Amino acid sequence: MFLHPKRIPIRVGNKYIAILNEKTAATMDLHPEDRIHIKTSSKTLTAILDVTERKELKDFQIGLYAETWDKLGLKKGKKVHVNVAPKPESDTYIKEKLMGKTLTKEKIDAIIKDVVEDDLSDIEMTYFVSGCFTRGLSDNETVNLTKAIVKYGNKLKFKDRIIMDKHCIGGVPGNRTTMVVVPIMTALGYKMPKTSSRAITSPAGTADTMEVLANVINEAPKLKKIANKVGGFITWGGGVDLAAADDRLIRVRFPLKLDPEGMLLASIMAKKFSVSANHVLIDIPMGPEGKIKTKKDAKHLKSRFLSIGKKLGMKLKVIFTDGTQPIGNGIGPVLEAIDVMRVLKNTPDAPQDLKKKSIMMCAELLFLTGKYKSRQTAEKIVTECLESGQAYKQMQRIIQAQGRKKMKKPGHHQMNVFAERAGKIVNINNKLIANISRTAGAPKDNGAGVYVYKKTGDKVKKGEKLFTIYSENKVRFDDIKKLPYKNTYKIN
Amino acid sequence: MFLHPKRIPIRVGNKYIAILNEKTAATMDLHPEDRIHIKTSSKTLTAILDVTERKELKDFQIGLYAETWDKLGLKKGKKVHVNVAPKPESDTYIKEKLMGKTLTKEKIDAIIKDVVEDDLSDIEMTYFVSGCFTRGLSDNETVNLTKAIVKYGNKLKFKDRIIMDKHCIGGVPGNRTTMVVVPIMTALGYKMPKTSSRAITSPAGTADTMEVLANVINEAPKLKKIANKVGGFITWGGGVDLAAADDRLIRVRFPLKLDPEGMLLASIMAKKFSVSANHVLIDIPMGPEGKIKTKKDAKHLKSRFLSIGKKLGMKLKVIFTDGTQPIGNGIGPVLEAIDVMRVLKNTPDAPQDLKKKSIMMCAELLFLTGKYKSRQTAEKIVTECLESGQAYKQMQRIIQAQGRKKMKKPGHHQMNVFAERAGKIVNINNKLIANISRTAGAPKDNGAGVYVYKKTGDKVKKGEKLFTIYSENKVRFDDIKKLPYKNTYKIN
Repeated sequence: MFLHPKRIPIRVGNKYIAILNEKTAATMDLHPEDRIHIKTSSKTLTAILDVTERKELKDFQIGLYAETWDKLGLKKGKKVHVNVAPKPESDTYIKEKLMGKTLTKEKIDAIIKDVVEDDLSDIEMTYFVSGCFTRGLSDNETVNLTKAIVKYGNKLKFKDRIIMDKHCIGGVPGNRTTMVVVPIMTALGYKMPKTSSRAITSPAGTADTMEVLANVINEAPKLKKIANKVGGFITWGGGVDLAAADDRLIRVRFPLKLDPEGMLLASIMAKKFSVSANHVLIDIPMGPEGKIKTKKDAKHLKSRFLSIGKKLGMKLKVIFTDGTQPIGNGIGPVLEAIDVMRVLKNTPDAPQDLKKKSIMMCAELLFLTGKYKSRQTAEKIVTECLESGQAYKQMQRIIQAQGRKKMKKPGHHQMNVFAERAGKIVNINNKLIANISRTAGAPKDNGAGVYVYKKTGDKVKKGEKLFTIYSENKVRFDDIKKLPYKNTYKIN
Repeated sequence: MFLHPKRIPIRVGNKYIAILNEKTAATMDLHPEDRIHIKTSSKTLTAILDVTERKELKDFQIGLYAETWDKLGLKKGKKVHVNVAPKPESDTYIKEKLMGKTLTKEKIDAIIKDVVEDDLSDIEMTYFVSGCFTRGLSDNETVNLTKAIVKYGNKLKFKDRIIMDKHCIGGVPGNRTTMVVVPIMTALGYKMPKTSSRAITSPAGTADTMEVLANVINEAPKLKKIANKVGGFITWGGGVDLAAADDRLIRVRFPLKLDPEGMLLASIMAKKFSVSANHVLIDIPMGPEGKIKTKKDAKHLKSRFLSIGKKLGMKLKVIFTDGTQPIGNGIGPVLEAIDVMRVLKNTPDAPQDLKKKSIMMCAELLFLTGKYKSRQTAEKIVTECLESGQAYKQMQRIIQAQGRKKMKKPGHHQMNVFAERAGKIVNINNKLIANISRTAGAPKDNGAGVYVYKKTGDKVKKGEKLFTIYSENKVRFDDIKKLPYKNTYKIN
């Protein structure tokens, strides 16, 4: 049927949506959420149908949101031909998953292709996430999902035999090892094209912290050039479209904060696979307040990572680390960047836990190459690289290549918190520290956050300084006083 | 934060949606699908957030779709205050269901309340449907879901001790027993306020067929008045908002045609419960092409209906009927209405199978009251009521009360199909008959459809007339010739 298009001057975010009034929809036997083909003389587009009241649109008029109108290259006055589109085959596969069936490579491919090409509505994508969540994904399904995400996204290819990468499950404040590990490994001559995330619910992601020092570039060809020139980069993965399907699925996972295990694994592995990584270190911090609370959960996750890594042809190592307290002293982008540069510069005030953990991780990566007899040998090489200042010089090259930024100072609203009694620190409340830092303004206000001076096991005197809170904004600074910030440290 | 509202002149269908540009959303630390409170000096509204590009909306501007703008009663130039709204508690409960937990009455109530009050997005409702589909609903959950749907919808209350209702699982062409049963039962003095569905994928629903004869009224107070005056009505349930939550959930079930059993049961039972029905007959037609294919499935469904009916305090009877061929001769609204009136008028050409099935069903309902010693006695009373013309008179009263419509004639494009060989009819293809009727234009063109003259078991001579196809529209009529319509009957 031919209809009169009407432009609706609003973008709905990479979705093609068309609207008919009730009468027109009924005449055409169409329902909300139906898929329709809209044809001009030269183009055809598939859109999802919405149905509105009769007073909103004329009969035989079709409302097209800006994306749809623009994609069709429509001009006023031209009619379009509209008919019902066949349901995408992936609907059947999604239903199969919901019913508990295992999906073949071809079916997963079809679903991810439809996700990337915007052929699935939010509702259909949600059903897919639900299916993966309730029925689980086998290792094979996860591998196929990983490959499909990479297939329908950008990919960075390198000629090098060894491409390194690392990933941390997260949940630990501070913990900016990536920004120490990448300079070391690239200084040692390995390629390490590292994409990281921004904070969603934490006070800072690696991308937020790196952005304090340099641009986090998002053009794939530019990134490839930088990696080939200086060995690596540290950037924000979200902008590069390396895993476009993943980004879309994450959007529908957001409302319920749903992390189907197989999808989470595929999401992580796709980001490694899409930069051609073949030597990968996975860091699983454990702690009662973290994402992985028990050894049992950590072991389960480890075995899945190993199995999937093997199927993807990666050398992969999984380590369990301490997730009970912050790593490094700074929490918040600027404060964390200060920590990182202190470690790289080998200053006396450099946080030793961040240094030690980074060296250990580099040694693991180096040992993974199979070139060294023992981890000790590898660790010696890594330590030498860091302590000689080579890693620092390498970081300067990376910053230069990405585009140096002038580093801000920490927020000038500051408050020190002191020990109310003498004793030994038995616990630091990670969640509260994160909450204080976010309330102070991190990560948006990148100078906001917390800087700690003491770690678990340290002895303190009454009145000794425990940590400083920084904020760039008076109102936010005052909000902190409403938090139970004095409970951050438990002293016994 | 105070923002400048901008009206977006489009309705999105009873959803409250607001849009910010990326910059404003980032500043406010908001994400797509976040829930926000929008406040004016006098009103507060919860809306779901969409995020668009910067060129679409100015910084610190908030785009409001027509529903949202109108609901807030906004005037140009007035600012609104916007902040993040707490996530509805039902998100937690929906996640629990997805994780396989059983939901309490309170949790189901909270979810359905949020569904009805448009506090859940499509994505969240989809997760709920997924949870019910993959994890199933226990009888108690189903009962609580039924009660919640009724609680947050309109309800018709009557003073009568006995309120009757019936439901057919569907899938059988023709089968307009409701329109015979309601006149009989109300003629016998029982209240029977019957809401029915329209066709979605079939050639006619009871509401479509009733609409040939009378208005299908959708205002609850009017319906109550009619039922109190003439004992009952036959109308379209969808317009009455008796199960508003159900209608909303059906919308997100549509794309994958997902029928979670517990939800389906709750959907049916809520419609009975909301008209205060306490004597209910459930008709489960069985057949290889129908919705219920095996005796095992039928028995399972029966036991669930019985258990749920008991918990709802209903007297409930489940019958298994023949679903292998059409009931009555007409398929399509006008042709079915003709059948119904022939049965009520006791004309010689009345389809005997429709008459017989309707009498049996009425007898079951009557027997359910406990007033009769045997079904035979009940059947005698019912038959007397129908054959004496009382039921016909009663149907006239119902039609009059709802508002009589002038009945159309069947479509004037007609084609007879004849037996190509002599023999006994061993099968009638229900799906093909439905397909022919829909292709001919049913239910939109209510004069379109099929009228059959022979049923399974009948003997035919070569060249004898098997059925006639009716259409109101030449193009549609020609389309039928592309279908394998000659395969409708199997003769051996």
